[in-house]
Amino acid sequence: MADLPELVQPFAWLIGTWRGEGVGGYPSIEQDFPYGEEITFACPGKPLLTFTSRSWALDDGRPLALQTGFWRPTSPTEVEVVLTVASGLVEILYGTLVDGSSGVHVELHSDVVARTATAKEVTADKRMYAVRGGKLMYAQEMAAVGVKELHPHLSAALDRVED
Amino acid sequence: MADLPELVQPFAWLIGTWRGEGVGGYPSIEQDFPYGEEITFACPGKPLLTFTSRSWALDDGRPLALQTGFWRPTSPTEVEVVLTVASGLVEILYGTLVDGSSGVHVELHSDVVARTATAKEVTADKRMYAVRGGKLMYAQEMAAVGVKELHPHLSAALDRVED
Repeated sequence: MADLPELVQPFAWLIGTWRGEGVGGYPSIEQDFPYGEEITFACPGKPLLTFTSRSWALDDGRPLALQTGFWRPTSPTEVEVVLTVASGLVEILYGTLVDGSSGVHVELHSDVVARTATAKEVTADKRMYAVRGGKLMYAQEMAAVGVKELHPHLSAALDRVED
Repeated sequence: MADLPELVQPFAWLIGTWRGEGVGGYPSIEQDFPYGEEITFACPGKPLLTFTSRSWALDDGRPLALQTGFWRPTSPTEVEVVLTVASGLVEILYGTLVDGSSGVHVELHSDVVARTATAKEVTADKRMYAVRGGKLMYAQEMAAVGVKELHPHLSAALDRVED
């Protein structure tokens, strides 16, 4: 912890590899679906965090989504995020560290979402990350595929599997 | 190779971990600089390649640039790339596999470059990747920090260290 760059320290509670299950849904999807996911936050010796996520189907283990990017803290309570999603998206999000009554969490809001020619339309992405009871919890809302307003899409609670 | 998704096979020559040295320069930089770099292309069991790059200073090993993203082949000769750079950039590039007299190479051209509030201005990115004599060679041109036209920025020749 003391070895971490000062800008990263307020976000150090994210660091680690986290694995568990989540549930996804969206107005365009008939039935909610469970998934497995592993997320890793690491500090690469610069004042930022690397972020990777991979998810898989619980029935046969086939890979689902892949994401990767960088979290760039710019103050003790603010972070810039650059993100790629393997489905053909790039995103710039801005986040705030919020110190609430049940502990800290980070809220991210997309500022830019761009997609490749073959990717599904996504126009906005909002995420909340927290650690509660030793688990990394997150909830993600998206505006996508013709849905103009943010709508809940994914949420998960992941156990820490590596420090 | 036979196990790779069909769309990935024309790009399979990129797969592996590659390490070596490169040289960087730009009109805004007084003196060219050498750097060490490791690039990994891998196929995660979906019809795409994951791409990661990290570079470091040769004098003291301090980390320099980090990049991560996904290459999404859409035909035997075409690829979409979504990319993040830790300095605060996201990019969408389109690429073509070119079969020339000295072998194949891939040319990528940026279609979208977006940056966070604190990142340096980059407006265009052009890259060429090839394997020649067993080495992964690449050359990158950028338009950045007030330079309107693409200008050579980085080039490297990296040895394969893992299949």
